[in-house]
Amino acid sequence: MIGLKKSVLSFLAGSLGVISLLIFCVAVPGYGQNVVNDRMLLNADKDPNNWLLYGRDYASTRHSPLNQININNVKRLVPKWVFQFGYLDGQDSEAIVNNGVLYITSSWNHVFALDARTGNMIWRYDHPLPEDLGKHLCCDVVNRGVAPYRGKVYFATLDEHLVALDAKTGKVVWDKVLGDYTYGESFTLMPMALRGKIIVGTSGAEYGIRGWIAAVDADTGELVWKTYTIPGPGEPGNDTWKGESWKYGGGSAWITGSYDPDLNILYWPVGNPGPDMDRHIREGDNLYTNSTLALDPDTGKIKFYFQYTPNDPYDFDGVNEVILADVGEKKVWLHADRNGYFYSIDRTNGKFIYGVPLSEINWAKGLDPSGRPIMNWPEKDVHFDKVTRNISPSLEGGKEWHPMAYNPKKGVAYVPTFQLTMDLQAMRQEWKRGELYLAAKVLEYHPGYGSLVAIEAATGKTKWSWNNKSPMTSGVLSTDGGLVFAGNPEGEFMAFNDETGELLWKFQTGSGIVGNPTTFSVDGKQYIAVPSGLGGWMGWATLGQGGAPWLKTATKGGALFVFGLFEE
Amino acid sequence: MIGLKKSVLSFLAGSLGVISLLIFCVAVPGYGQNVVNDRMLLNADKDPNNWLLYGRDYASTRHSPLNQININNVKRLVPKWVFQFGYLDGQDSEAIVNNGVLYITSSWNHVFALDARTGNMIWRYDHPLPEDLGKHLCCDVVNRGVAPYRGKVYFATLDEHLVALDAKTGKVVWDKVLGDYTYGESFTLMPMALRGKIIVGTSGAEYGIRGWIAAVDADTGELVWKTYTIPGPGEPGNDTWKGESWKYGGGSAWITGSYDPDLNILYWPVGNPGPDMDRHIREGDNLYTNSTLALDPDTGKIKFYFQYTPNDPYDFDGVNEVILADVGEKKVWLHADRNGYFYSIDRTNGKFIYGVPLSEINWAKGLDPSGRPIMNWPEKDVHFDKVTRNISPSLEGGKEWHPMAYNPKKGVAYVPTFQLTMDLQAMRQEWKRGELYLAAKVLEYHPGYGSLVAIEAATGKTKWSWNNKSPMTSGVLSTDGGLVFAGNPEGEFMAFNDETGELLWKFQTGSGIVGNPTTFSVDGKQYIAVPSGLGGWMGWATLGQGGAPWLKTATKGGALFVFGLFEE
Repeated sequence: MIGLKKSVLSFLAGSLGVISLLIFCVAVPGYGQNVVNDRMLLNADKDPNNWLLYGRDYASTRHSPLNQININNVKRLVPKWVFQFGYLDGQDSEAIVNNGVLYITSSWNHVFALDARTGNMIWRYDHPLPEDLGKHLCCDVVNRGVAPYRGKVYFATLDEHLVALDAKTGKVVWDKVLGDYTYGESFTLMPMALRGKIIVGTSGAEYGIRGWIAAVDADTGELVWKTYTIPGPGEPGNDTWKGESWKYGGGSAWITGSYDPDLNILYWPVGNPGPDMDRHIREGDNLYTNSTLALDPDTGKIKFYFQYTPNDPYDFDGVNEVILADVGEKKVWLHADRNGYFYSIDRTNGKFIYGVPLSEINWAKGLDPSGRPIMNWPEKDVHFDKVTRNISPSLEGGKEWHPMAYNPKKGVAYVPTFQLTMDLQAMRQEWKRGELYLAAKVLEYHPGYGSLVAIEAATGKTKWSWNNKSPMTSGVLSTDGGLVFAGNPEGEFMAFNDETGELLWKFQTGSGIVGNPTTFSVDGKQYIAVPSGLGGWMGWATLGQGGAPWLKTATKGGALFVFGLFEE
Repeated sequence: MIGLKKSVLSFLAGSLGVISLLIFCVAVPGYGQNVVNDRMLLNADKDPNNWLLYGRDYASTRHSPLNQININNVKRLVPKWVFQFGYLDGQDSEAIVNNGVLYITSSWNHVFALDARTGNMIWRYDHPLPEDLGKHLCCDVVNRGVAPYRGKVYFATLDEHLVALDAKTGKVVWDKVLGDYTYGESFTLMPMALRGKIIVGTSGAEYGIRGWIAAVDADTGELVWKTYTIPGPGEPGNDTWKGESWKYGGGSAWITGSYDPDLNILYWPVGNPGPDMDRHIREGDNLYTNSTLALDPDTGKIKFYFQYTPNDPYDFDGVNEVILADVGEKKVWLHADRNGYFYSIDRTNGKFIYGVPLSEINWAKGLDPSGRPIMNWPEKDVHFDKVTRNISPSLEGGKEWHPMAYNPKKGVAYVPTFQLTMDLQAMRQEWKRGELYLAAKVLEYHPGYGSLVAIEAATGKTKWSWNNKSPMTSGVLSTDGGLVFAGNPEGEFMAFNDETGELLWKFQTGSGIVGNPTTFSVDGKQYIAVPSGLGGWMGWATLGQGGAPWLKTATKGGALFVFGLFEE
């Protein structure tokens, strides 16, 4: 009965069953399906009303079939309600909607369940965080949302808890500690619910942890499998690490993966090696950092992989999302990496199809036929006591973590990019448990800009590109209304014509947008939701260090904006 | 050139002078009057476009002649932009607008100048606050806005600075320390600019300070006069204090006054005595606490006064605003006090005209012909070691500080009320410098509600009343559009038909509204601005202590919402 107003409930309480049922069906389309199950998740791409998974569907397209809001009426889009979290700093989250109930997380690990039509709070959950957390957290107090499944919502916390909350009440059903924040591990991702399991990946490469992906039983929280992203002695790939360097090898897995039910393969992205920027003390390819892993979802076994940047000295955190696309006869995954390339990879075997530049690239001279970068060494190598200037792109990418969208009907990906250059210097650093392990510092970001780029998946060709003054710091949403939505760190939420890139509409939300827009429908009305609130890594890196110095006076924020069409 | 977009400036830079001037006049109506002067302030009631004074005009009516937004089209009101302050806690402020530039202050003493049409930041000023401020601050880190005058905006800070900022750049012109925050003094009010002076009143009665109102030279910041609200030995009224109790007598003056240019009288409200609730150690009438003072604005000399609650044991802080109204032949001031009465007072001499109840009142049996309350003692007296239950209204009022509005054409005041009851107990307490000096505690607020009440100024009769689930915690705005605007702690900003009280429109801002709505016009378009952000005293008192327990899970906020009519 979630999502019904009190008045309706009162009415129901006093009515005959048959009448109740009738009213019920009218008031809440899809009632009876409000407990999220596997069928709903496996068919999420065909469900226009809800948004149940991180990337909307297991292919992570972020494309909605809703078209009530479209290129002809998008100028009529207005805020319908706003919800202020009561917490500032980076709002990396996105609204998850099931049957009229909207779940959103804020900075500092709070979860709110709201009536999607009005913004009225149904419940809140405030996760207690340890006082010394800040000492072991590299990149702000962010979270990317909760996963709804089997009457619960699953929430992964900064202090490495996985918490199952009752979807109707917000009460804790179980709370399991899966890692150790004092070691540098943390969770910032939205968990993935998949066939009875909840799958998560840890953050922490900046502390030289040994990264991992794990699956727990959705009902009990018991561990089912745990796969390290850095192979240990005797495992394939361990020989790609010099000496003992694998022990501190990083390889976080903090972006939610994708799943192909036909192939029964789970694709999960893996980030940068530890230390982030001194490649020489970890000579070798450093598997499986800066890679996408293809895993057996039942066992966690690695079937194959593709690595974007071997032995990376630039902190080109390859953790960016993968979108599963069927392009002609080819089953591929699409991936826009921080290293500046946009990739198409055969998802049946991990073989390289193409890689095209998203931004200026000067750290590599190109990609060889297998997709391996041809390094621009010694010119752009990073050494102790030597400054390497004007590396393009900067460690922010290319593209940052903010997910692109893919319209499967048009075969076009919409990619938010960063056009920045950095100066880097390596530093000698010993690993110490729970301490930052970067082994370099960014001396300077040179002021740059950003673009929203439409790329044809079949060819890698740019269809259109729209430039923003600052880097594009939000996720992207694509809809059958012929629209692409994205935000910028200036605070504007924008709608574009997906064929031409024409800016059709915008609204100033008053703080930078660094989270992801989603769309849903309740009572036959389409809404668009986007969190607003600049902070954390974006605030520090792109603003504080010079990438967008005009935003130095920008304000933090913490609010969810929900838009709908103006009605007379 | 404030308020112009860059593109316009660029165009101007490349144009001939004549053309530039033309464009300029079209783009910014009223250009040339953008330096606020006495003529503008004295005629603020006739200026539809700007909002230059705390209560819009020196009479503090909060009534605007704008009528573009009216009862016929208010349903078309939508947010045009939002600005997030980047600071939480109580947002008690209001938008001041001069010629397209909007000035707003946030919690924690930040000032922002924004383009009123877009919300884009022109400048910000961040006042540094001392680390130990919290020890000496009773009621949250709030501020009520800046006063624009002679090319500056004047900002009164929590640590008792008065800062003059350049209106175009936000640079500090001068910064004077007028009081001592370690003594318990603080500023939360919007200063008043008046004929070459800047007038302020201090907060701090809760610390047993001796309250005062002061005027400084607007150009230099040099003190012109300072009038204590508690008379010293030898001064008239000192005999209304038992023994030495006048020394800690309170009498804060933290709400901006009103001014009658014809009578050349400054009306300034004075709050509760110190200690707040033990009347027995300060027997006597305790002048001039809980009074409105009529002052000579040139000298600060007290001409006359009216006292609402002598020897107050209930913390009925009489600091609420006064509205100057001409009712038939009578020149009156209107005042809705926390003691629960709505007063009309002859403003030529301070004589009582009438007092009518705004809420349930049981602490007094009524008012005598001079307006003095007939106390309900011993039944409702407050003693040591005795609990006095069910005192109505509670110390929040009647009406809290949030200002009412008055439509001078209709002769009707629109009053936001609190309908709460409290249990009180006196406690023995010695005054110590810089420490809270309440001498009592509220044992409990009983859950209550609020009303927006329309009162005919001539008769005191209630024209209509609209009930809200929680107390009404925002200021009120009245317009010639036939509308009254107000917010509630649930976060809704609302518009009412001023004749009937019918709720015509509302928008959920996502955090409680405890500041004041204002309206202005730029480029021929009317806008309505309101800050949103629950916190501080409201959060603590009405929510934390039981007055509105359903709001215990409500979130803090910090944003300015600017609304306008939807345009195709």
